[in-house]
Amino acid sequence: MDTQKIIRDSYPSSEKVYVPGKLFPIRVGMRKINLTDTVTIENGKRVHTPNAPVYVYDTSGPYTDPMVEVDINRGLPRLRESWIADRGDVEQLDDITSQYGRARRDDPALESIRFKHTPLPYKAKPGHSITQMYYARQGIITAEMEYVAIRENLMNEQLGIKSHITPEFVRDEVAAGRAIIPANINHPEAEPMIIGRNFLVKLNTNIGNSALSSGIEEEVDKAVWSCHWGGDTLMDLSTGDHIHETREWIIRNCPVPMGTVPIYQALEKVNGKVEDLTWEIYRDTLIEQCEQGVDYFTIHAGVLKAHADLVGERLTGIVSRGGSIMTKWCVIHNQESFLYTHFDEICEILKQYDVAISLGDGMRPGSIHDANDRSQFLELDVLGELTEKAWAHDVQVIIEGPGHIPMHKIKENMDRQLSSCHGAPFYTLGPLTTDIAPGYDHITSAIGAAQIAWLGTAMICYVTPKEHLGLPDREDVRNGVIAYKIAAHAADLAKGFPGAQVRDDAMSKARYEFRWKDQFNLALDPDRALEYYKQGSFHDGNYCTMCGPNFCAMRLSQDITKCVETE
Amino acid sequence: MDTQKIIRDSYPSSEKVYVPGKLFPIRVGMRKINLTDTVTIENGKRVHTPNAPVYVYDTSGPYTDPMVEVDINRGLPRLRESWIADRGDVEQLDDITSQYGRARRDDPALESIRFKHTPLPYKAKPGHSITQMYYARQGIITAEMEYVAIRENLMNEQLGIKSHITPEFVRDEVAAGRAIIPANINHPEAEPMIIGRNFLVKLNTNIGNSALSSGIEEEVDKAVWSCHWGGDTLMDLSTGDHIHETREWIIRNCPVPMGTVPIYQALEKVNGKVEDLTWEIYRDTLIEQCEQGVDYFTIHAGVLKAHADLVGERLTGIVSRGGSIMTKWCVIHNQESFLYTHFDEICEILKQYDVAISLGDGMRPGSIHDANDRSQFLELDVLGELTEKAWAHDVQVIIEGPGHIPMHKIKENMDRQLSSCHGAPFYTLGPLTTDIAPGYDHITSAIGAAQIAWLGTAMICYVTPKEHLGLPDREDVRNGVIAYKIAAHAADLAKGFPGAQVRDDAMSKARYEFRWKDQFNLALDPDRALEYYKQGSFHDGNYCTMCGPNFCAMRLSQDITKCVETE
Repeated sequence: MDTQKIIRDSYPSSEKVYVPGKLFPIRVGMRKINLTDTVTIENGKRVHTPNAPVYVYDTSGPYTDPMVEVDINRGLPRLRESWIADRGDVEQLDDITSQYGRARRDDPALESIRFKHTPLPYKAKPGHSITQMYYARQGIITAEMEYVAIRENLMNEQLGIKSHITPEFVRDEVAAGRAIIPANINHPEAEPMIIGRNFLVKLNTNIGNSALSSGIEEEVDKAVWSCHWGGDTLMDLSTGDHIHETREWIIRNCPVPMGTVPIYQALEKVNGKVEDLTWEIYRDTLIEQCEQGVDYFTIHAGVLKAHADLVGERLTGIVSRGGSIMTKWCVIHNQESFLYTHFDEICEILKQYDVAISLGDGMRPGSIHDANDRSQFLELDVLGELTEKAWAHDVQVIIEGPGHIPMHKIKENMDRQLSSCHGAPFYTLGPLTTDIAPGYDHITSAIGAAQIAWLGTAMICYVTPKEHLGLPDREDVRNGVIAYKIAAHAADLAKGFPGAQVRDDAMSKARYEFRWKDQFNLALDPDRALEYYKQGSFHDGNYCTMCGPNFCAMRLSQDITKCVETE
Repeated sequence: MDTQKIIRDSYPSSEKVYVPGKLFPIRVGMRKINLTDTVTIENGKRVHTPNAPVYVYDTSGPYTDPMVEVDINRGLPRLRESWIADRGDVEQLDDITSQYGRARRDDPALESIRFKHTPLPYKAKPGHSITQMYYARQGIITAEMEYVAIRENLMNEQLGIKSHITPEFVRDEVAAGRAIIPANINHPEAEPMIIGRNFLVKLNTNIGNSALSSGIEEEVDKAVWSCHWGGDTLMDLSTGDHIHETREWIIRNCPVPMGTVPIYQALEKVNGKVEDLTWEIYRDTLIEQCEQGVDYFTIHAGVLKAHADLVGERLTGIVSRGGSIMTKWCVIHNQESFLYTHFDEICEILKQYDVAISLGDGMRPGSIHDANDRSQFLELDVLGELTEKAWAHDVQVIIEGPGHIPMHKIKENMDRQLSSCHGAPFYTLGPLTTDIAPGYDHITSAIGAAQIAWLGTAMICYVTPKEHLGLPDREDVRNGVIAYKIAAHAADLAKGFPGAQVRDDAMSKARYEFRWKDQFNLALDPDRALEYYKQGSFHDGNYCTMCGPNFCAMRLSQDITKCVETE
């Protein structure tokens, strides 16, 4: 794979800096945006006043560190491997456990598309618990916890605010189940991050091929760019060919936690025949993916046989792929879902790798009409029951939420989720606030996502402009990620995080002082801002094409301040 | 001008239909979207079940009526001219009143760019009041009132719901000042529409050139397309050359009410020298524009001399062009704003043409930092005082609002506006919920606009992706309009208008039944939806490229329903 085609440098005037840990020998990467001076004329002389750099949360990983030579064919440095080893409670296996995984490794036909440097997997030593939740409940602060505390604190530090977000606070939140740190021991390339409503709002991006499109290189490219634009986690939802190999390439090159929906691959293994799905095939798929390094699994274990009868009440039935697969299985076999009946066994497997569970909302509404209906909330109660089961195993849990919800029904979703699911973090897809704008569902849903995140949703799953129409390409990923960065940041501001406004204030000051380059560099998408600016006639004056020289309010406003001051 | 380059046909499967009035010989245009049949297989046979067409609010005017031959060079049919004449209280003037207007008409140098069919203006007969508010207060229902009642009722009719929106209700709302029908007697080409919080949420688009860009044809093109995509009103904010001529072309071809900010043109008349502005120049500009047919004027009469001192408290000073111009004028002349001191005279002029006032928020915050500050709310109180003054003249009023506001401060804006301004309709620019996304401010602001509209804002002014960076082109107008159609519709749903969900439900049913063409045709932007769909591998099957055949939840869900039904 051509690394140079995929990776890119940091944005202009930005540099990667690292803040060292105090408890552990860790260093937390962040992006430092250097600003130009404010220039004023005083007594006929130009006076330069420096502007402090702005440090921002950085999900781009080693790709933007010029000291690290990234080679997509070898994968990223294994940042957390020594942290994990130092805890002394895991062992490296002699071989991969999954039958299917071994078969793929040994199939000569896959040689040309196989990632060549797959390491042997790690697993908890017998009798050991190794999840972040387990440690937290034991009162142990891990390197991962200190890492996220530093990362989350970044903006407060710039204001000199003593934040409550300490490693101890992180430990408390994880122990209580109010936050998770998705961190499979087999994905040590990922930089730790935390998902919880007392932390910055996070966003997930979905990538993945389908039977009709997209190859491995394109998916790796989307993954790397998703991180570059600001995606906090990403899910590989591939359903086409070579799911196993695609995932391997992505995980080895992915600096953020990565999730999947294992039932998709299980279904591919039985050639799309829902009736042929078995617990054994699913179980082997879980182990296969645990050992590859997937950090969290969407598991639609709350979709029960009894729910099938309710589908007919809806305008759009079941729109969750996992939910519809499991419902069909239940109906065909007239049996309860094996995800539900084997849930304890699932937890037993996942805890050995510290894979978190994202309890899927198989009954999420797919239309405004079906919002907040009986099916949806019945399932939510089941998810609450499963949350407690997972916690009994020290398995970390987040809860997936809708979907299509009109604005006045959003709050009920948040309220019910908090009470039904005992405070576990909520992770919603949008919600889309109307059904009538295909081609613009990044916007219909950013409106809903900003609101539900403000109300307490910990992570929002992006929707791209292609939703309902086709698979996203790289440009769609970009538009989806930025729309959701906006929604997440708007929610952080509304939640009153003290440091959240640092970047807004720096941007606004740059705007008022006509420091154009600083405006681009401080923007969520510097390339786009610059591109649009250049489409107007380019110049360096104290105005832009929007208003022209005579009508620039900010220039006039500066005149006024000068007038008032010299009066 | 090349008409064929500018206009376009209706969307596929759409036709223009008219609903006749009961009180007046009027007919209200709307767009009928014809849908395909639902096809099911029953006992091995294909069974067709028709789907009722969906009628949607239509702002495209005669451009989408194949029975009307539109010629941009001649202007649109003068729909309301006979309605106005029938009331017997206006007279057509022998000549245009404005000195400047006459000079432009007589300047041979302007021959090549002048619109050739400018009619002589109308004006109230001496001693007559002719505003919609005046009629309403007299208990008179006008043709315009019946027109908007039919237009607003459209969706309810489809559900067979007896709506409270009757011509009498419209009259009540206009009489109380809670709604306005912007309807200059000199813009009879415009189809009546209503702005008020008990009606559908409306959206305004801004177009206009600046000294640095854009010609007349491009502005007319943007205006026509803005209406086509769904803009309810539009403002010509031109500040460059040929403001007078550009406006004439736009008004004569504009099927929706059109607004301006007259101080912009007044400033151009004094070559951009704020200090040279006078009440007399402004007064002649008002008359010039009243007689051209501008339906509402933004007037920053709430910006007072005393406010100048507060500018220094802000991070971004004054970001309203009109506000900064007037503040600078006050400071230079050490006098109170002539817009404030001459406000009664302004009303006396406007009432003779039924031009509405949009009280400008010269002190709107231009950054998250400045949101809800002292300057902003002090001005709002002045706007409340001016509202009562205008109402004393039977002049219709709306109140402009911010700007840049974080989500948790939005509600205070709405609450204060309602109480300070006695229930006059609120008309906000966004608000933008963060400062850090130049290039995507249609999204940062659609998030805020949806929320404030839900809370009661009657009209939202779009922001395009180019905001803060340059003047919008046609594609930017499209992205701005659709983002705001989404925000407005999301608010209509959340406000619980009974008929608002008709289109969503039709879309969702089409989605569930894989009626792809209906999905495109029901979309806010059919062209965009189709374009994105085609980017995937095109096919007509019961799935799309997003999930491929095995993973289509909706297809699986239909299987389940069939299974359950045949059990």
